[in-house]
Amino acid sequence: MTEKRYLFTPGPTPVPPEVLAATAEPIIHHRGPDFRVVYERSLARLKEVFRTENEVLLFAASGTGTMESAISNLCSPGDRVCVVTAGAFGDRWASVARAFGCEVDRLEYEWGEAPAADDLTARLAEREAGVVLMTHSETSTGVVADVRGLSAAAREGGAVSVVDAVSSLGAVPLETDEWEVDVVVSGSQKALMAPPGLALVSVSQRAWDARGMLPRFYFDWERTRKAQEIFDAAFTPAVSLVRGLDVALGILLEQGLEAAFERHVRLGRACREGIKAMGLELFSPDDDSAAVVTAIRAPDGVDAGALLLLLRDRHGVTLAPGQGPLKGKVFRIGHIGYFDVFDIATALSAVELALTELGADIERGVATTRAFEAYEQPVAV
Amino acid sequence: MTEKRYLFTPGPTPVPPEVLAATAEPIIHHRGPDFRVVYERSLARLKEVFRTENEVLLFAASGTGTMESAISNLCSPGDRVCVVTAGAFGDRWASVARAFGCEVDRLEYEWGEAPAADDLTARLAEREAGVVLMTHSETSTGVVADVRGLSAAAREGGAVSVVDAVSSLGAVPLETDEWEVDVVVSGSQKALMAPPGLALVSVSQRAWDARGMLPRFYFDWERTRKAQEIFDAAFTPAVSLVRGLDVALGILLEQGLEAAFERHVRLGRACREGIKAMGLELFSPDDDSAAVVTAIRAPDGVDAGALLLLLRDRHGVTLAPGQGPLKGKVFRIGHIGYFDVFDIATALSAVELALTELGADIERGVATTRAFEAYEQPVAV
Repeated sequence: MTEKRYLFTPGPTPVPPEVLAATAEPIIHHRGPDFRVVYERSLARLKEVFRTENEVLLFAASGTGTMESAISNLCSPGDRVCVVTAGAFGDRWASVARAFGCEVDRLEYEWGEAPAADDLTARLAEREAGVVLMTHSETSTGVVADVRGLSAAAREGGAVSVVDAVSSLGAVPLETDEWEVDVVVSGSQKALMAPPGLALVSVSQRAWDARGMLPRFYFDWERTRKAQEIFDAAFTPAVSLVRGLDVALGILLEQGLEAAFERHVRLGRACREGIKAMGLELFSPDDDSAAVVTAIRAPDGVDAGALLLLLRDRHGVTLAPGQGPLKGKVFRIGHIGYFDVFDIATALSAVELALTELGADIERGVATTRAFEAYEQPVAV
Repeated sequence: MTEKRYLFTPGPTPVPPEVLAATAEPIIHHRGPDFRVVYERSLARLKEVFRTENEVLLFAASGTGTMESAISNLCSPGDRVCVVTAGAFGDRWASVARAFGCEVDRLEYEWGEAPAADDLTARLAEREAGVVLMTHSETSTGVVADVRGLSAAAREGGAVSVVDAVSSLGAVPLETDEWEVDVVVSGSQKALMAPPGLALVSVSQRAWDARGMLPRFYFDWERTRKAQEIFDAAFTPAVSLVRGLDVALGILLEQGLEAAFERHVRLGRACREGIKAMGLELFSPDDDSAAVVTAIRAPDGVDAGALLLLLRDRHGVTLAPGQGPLKGKVFRIGHIGYFDVFDIATALSAVELALTELGADIERGVATTRAFEAYEQPVAV
């Protein structure tokens, strides 16, 4: 028998079979009525998921593509931007901004720390910036930032707020309009439960009015907005991926966003309790904010990389490694999107089995029971 | 019964069922060995299809994304580029270059004309340019340009040659290395028989050495080249589309590129002979160069747009309209990629039926027979 595969990474994430089936339908023309129905519905569903009346622009690209779009549409050469960073994806904002010739002011935290709105207020009072770039769910550490507070601080400091919501959108609350977040970028391959290859961005009127002079074409917001107004696309869209996204968004919205948020809280809780029951130590926060990805310290004497290779190559189970300074020290279990408690149980069982094989001193036979119990506890909404 | 759909546009094009099935396989992680095998093989197959020893860089994007990459990687602000244009896609080169602040020198032809290498030589002697941007198959007119001659003229004039091969790659000969073409950009959704969403670019050493200072991140060649060297990807790739592309390239290469080129010549010939037998007039050239798309003048008294709507909405058959100055005047039948002579016969039959319904004076009952005869004629290779 072919070894079964289990994908428990924070992206790309498992995709429901009906979404995969939709991506395999015969190719249709992107300017005909068959696609128009799908495109129009997807764009409307995206606005619901982003909780915004702003247009959500859809590009064939990885999520980094719309991160770039935020810089190239909002900035002019030499503009100062403030990057709030506490991990790999905050650092990516800084890399993109530098590549486009911006002056980058880093509001920097240790990996694993949570950015504080007050720090941003103080920083902007000290040094103005036209744009603040932040990360909602820092996938490298499992920390979910207080985007509501940070974007309010940005606004009060006179800056446009830009949020990387690639791994958070659809998993944890993000109220784009209520919180007055100006720009939200995301991708298809995380909690939206679709294959990778589509990048998304919502743009507030305030952000439209703040656009800058950097050169852009493919990711130019105006070109795509104009096309989408008539449910056309500026360039040949990834029609099969859009079909998949449409089906996935339908599943998410039928379940309801609030239900999805609650499920992610319970999945995170189940994962943490199971991990602790085994005797392991969490790197990500031990509270309900950590609903997207759980980062775990490798036990003494075990290299996290060796654990992941064993899991993958002997057991067919893919977890995610530590990045940057956390390499070899932590491993991560994603629980974003198409996940239920049995996935958590499988991930925990696999970790328990592999750590035992590696001779680690862990508590056996308790993790999954504890996870099921934790999953059943009601969530205060 | 649901109305069947027939897609005869020059992109996106029909995709073989086994390619669609591959795109619907469960999502795998982009840094694991399962994907690595697919990625490594796809990149190797792309080099065969591009007929190059240069690396072919793979991006999640529409084809226009790698057109942009050619400008943003090769140029510095204010650089003069020469754009050879005889249609909509030549004009797109000019639009992208202008958006990036280049000085655009247009070597311009009427839509439907074929660019001449001698004109380019003369133009570059008159006004130097660091980069020459050209279109191999001008999809808007059906003209396939002499890329061999044009790129030689560019090289002799001291310029880097950049070819848009989006609709030509895999359909008509393009000898990247033998013809010393510096940069070739293409997409997954035409003769490569895969869904849209992947953009490709091959880069010669000469082009690497000529890179400029324009800002870039997502489409930065160096970032993706470095990642591909270790069969990694700079950003989460569109894993399901890459799986599909891999299968499609396998089909193409098993058949053989020469066989694909010959088939496209015969498909074009069959289409033209059938069209002429009906009494219609060609807009695209009436010779074997027109192997990618056949552009046809609407008969007197018939608006091409009305014909296409009738075909699409009553008969489920999608052809392509005229673009720009050809709007309403011509319609286009694509025969790129996953096409055989029965597709041509169906397209011709549908045109014949719809034109009859519109009261056009055409010859009935002869087109498909003539097409089959033309398809059987041997092709001098």
